[in-house]
Amino acid sequence: MSSDHFAVPESLSSIVCLGGGHGLFQTLRAARSLNLADISAIVTVADDGGSSGRIRRELGHIPPGDLRMALCALARDDEEGAMWESVLQHRFGGTGALAGHAVGNLLISGLTDVLGSEMLALDAVAKLTRSYGRVIPVCPQPLDIEAEVAGLADDPRIMRMLRGQVAIASTPGEVRRVRLIPDGPVASKDALDAIERADMITLGPGSWFSSVIPHLLVGDIVEAISASKALRVVVLNLSNTQLETTGFSMERHIHMLMQHAPNLKVDRILVDKASPIDLTDLTHLERAAAAVGAMVVVDDVRQYNENGLATERHCPEKLAESLVRLYQTG
Amino acid sequence: MSSDHFAVPESLSSIVCLGGGHGLFQTLRAARSLNLADISAIVTVADDGGSSGRIRRELGHIPPGDLRMALCALARDDEEGAMWESVLQHRFGGTGALAGHAVGNLLISGLTDVLGSEMLALDAVAKLTRSYGRVIPVCPQPLDIEAEVAGLADDPRIMRMLRGQVAIASTPGEVRRVRLIPDGPVASKDALDAIERADMITLGPGSWFSSVIPHLLVGDIVEAISASKALRVVVLNLSNTQLETTGFSMERHIHMLMQHAPNLKVDRILVDKASPIDLTDLTHLERAAAAVGAMVVVDDVRQYNENGLATERHCPEKLAESLVRLYQTG
Repeated sequence: MSSDHFAVPESLSSIVCLGGGHGLFQTLRAARSLNLADISAIVTVADDGGSSGRIRRELGHIPPGDLRMALCALARDDEEGAMWESVLQHRFGGTGALAGHAVGNLLISGLTDVLGSEMLALDAVAKLTRSYGRVIPVCPQPLDIEAEVAGLADDPRIMRMLRGQVAIASTPGEVRRVRLIPDGPVASKDALDAIERADMITLGPGSWFSSVIPHLLVGDIVEAISASKALRVVVLNLSNTQLETTGFSMERHIHMLMQHAPNLKVDRILVDKASPIDLTDLTHLERAAAAVGAMVVVDDVRQYNENGLATERHCPEKLAESLVRLYQTG
Repeated sequence: MSSDHFAVPESLSSIVCLGGGHGLFQTLRAARSLNLADISAIVTVADDGGSSGRIRRELGHIPPGDLRMALCALARDDEEGAMWESVLQHRFGGTGALAGHAVGNLLISGLTDVLGSEMLALDAVAKLTRSYGRVIPVCPQPLDIEAEVAGLADDPRIMRMLRGQVAIASTPGEVRRVRLIPDGPVASKDALDAIERADMITLGPGSWFSSVIPHLLVGDIVEAISASKALRVVVLNLSNTQLETTGFSMERHIHMLMQHAPNLKVDRILVDKASPIDLTDLTHLERAAAAVGAMVVVDDVRQYNENGLATERHCPEKLAESLVRLYQTG
């Protein structure tokens, strides 16, 4: 189904999607399919791996990988937009110094050097891709993540500190709490402005500790979300098999948000109908949701492959339709 | 002076500039200032140094540096064109694996990977810069240059073979002859088409052995130039201080062209009026010019800096005006 098949209400013209990586990509593709006048991606800046990590260490820039992914998600839905999306996503092959670098990461970095700011660089790439929206780093500087992790020692009471998104996203231990370094960073002004004028705000899906919760460790962002009159939707992950949150219940995902941002207010928790939960789980989730002011909504938002098998990704069109439904019944 | 101050004849609508590096850049800027409908740069593909050399070795592409320079020379003459010119020319700093890579080289390489051909990649960048013309590699594959060089041994009769543009352009020895590896390469079809429809063709200025003569080692290119009805102009260098041709007279520059392409026909040899030649030198130059069918023309084409001092670069506006004058009196 596409947005041709259902009406987007006139009062919904502005959406802000917070996250990073593949989760944010799918949410932005949903937003793109709604063809809203004002779409903003607010993107995590704590990556330290791969091409992004190398650029960050070499040039001191905000790691560009999550920003690039968001720009690609919002690229114009035509031949030229698709061409630039392919080029920005393309990674150099070979066995030399360039191997693995994404072209888009290098272009964002070059533009940042020349124009003097990541925001100007991202707007220049957005112009190139004739983007449906704007991509904004949550903070105007690179950040690090540090995590308290249990289960890495023989004695389960011993906590270890892990540093870096890659280490945290792939730890076999159990992440208990994360924090940003430096602590208490200032939010991007453009991010706060976008949240203030939003009619709808989404948070998640994505790697909970490395792409979702870091946004909630920026005080101004939590305050802006909680003060917003937008419909605020947490989009829960489709599975609990991501290494950093293996076995975490949906309820625990919400508890984790509250633990890191006690003042957070949201309105809806969106759960896919094929998620592996029973009625008891749902009751627990509803109780956790109530604590942040939210209702749980179960809907069909999962992508199925051509053989009808469930994937672990949200379907942009279904998600778009579901978000509009939430907004209309809001 | 700009093209506002003199009329470009209607019959001059198509120009082809052959060369590489900074020399070609100035010629293309001259062509750009004429605002012709059809401008083509035919560019050397034998660089093996710096960012281009690293890309060539890592990815097997045509070295992009000379192509990038030509694209920058032809970028739209407005704020956005200037911005992209700066970005394409920008070289990464730092001390890591990216240091020294030009952003434009990486973008051309990424586009080549994705689109499957250098020509499509160059046309995509030209679209981005809203280019005044087209940039075409002289051959659709990377080439190497090999040179016979005298004066590198105690015995001046002993010749050494040097390989690679960097080695040849910087040898303290005396280059006697160059050849391409592989020998007898096929010209780009787009290059031959451009030459065929040209009203004017320029060759040089530039590093004689690494940016000018290599074009004349592609048989089809020499044949197309010699068969052309265009006004064919060799633009001589402003000084003879480039390492590879130190002390070479202007006459010898022309002899070198003939030695490498005995069938070459050109119409004009353009010499700056402040060049360090006396009447005897001029007579010798005219004799050499006659052997390729050309007349020598002395004109004011040099750039002077803000203090009125001579530079070693051609002034694009003066060169443009001079080329038009040559064409009108042709």
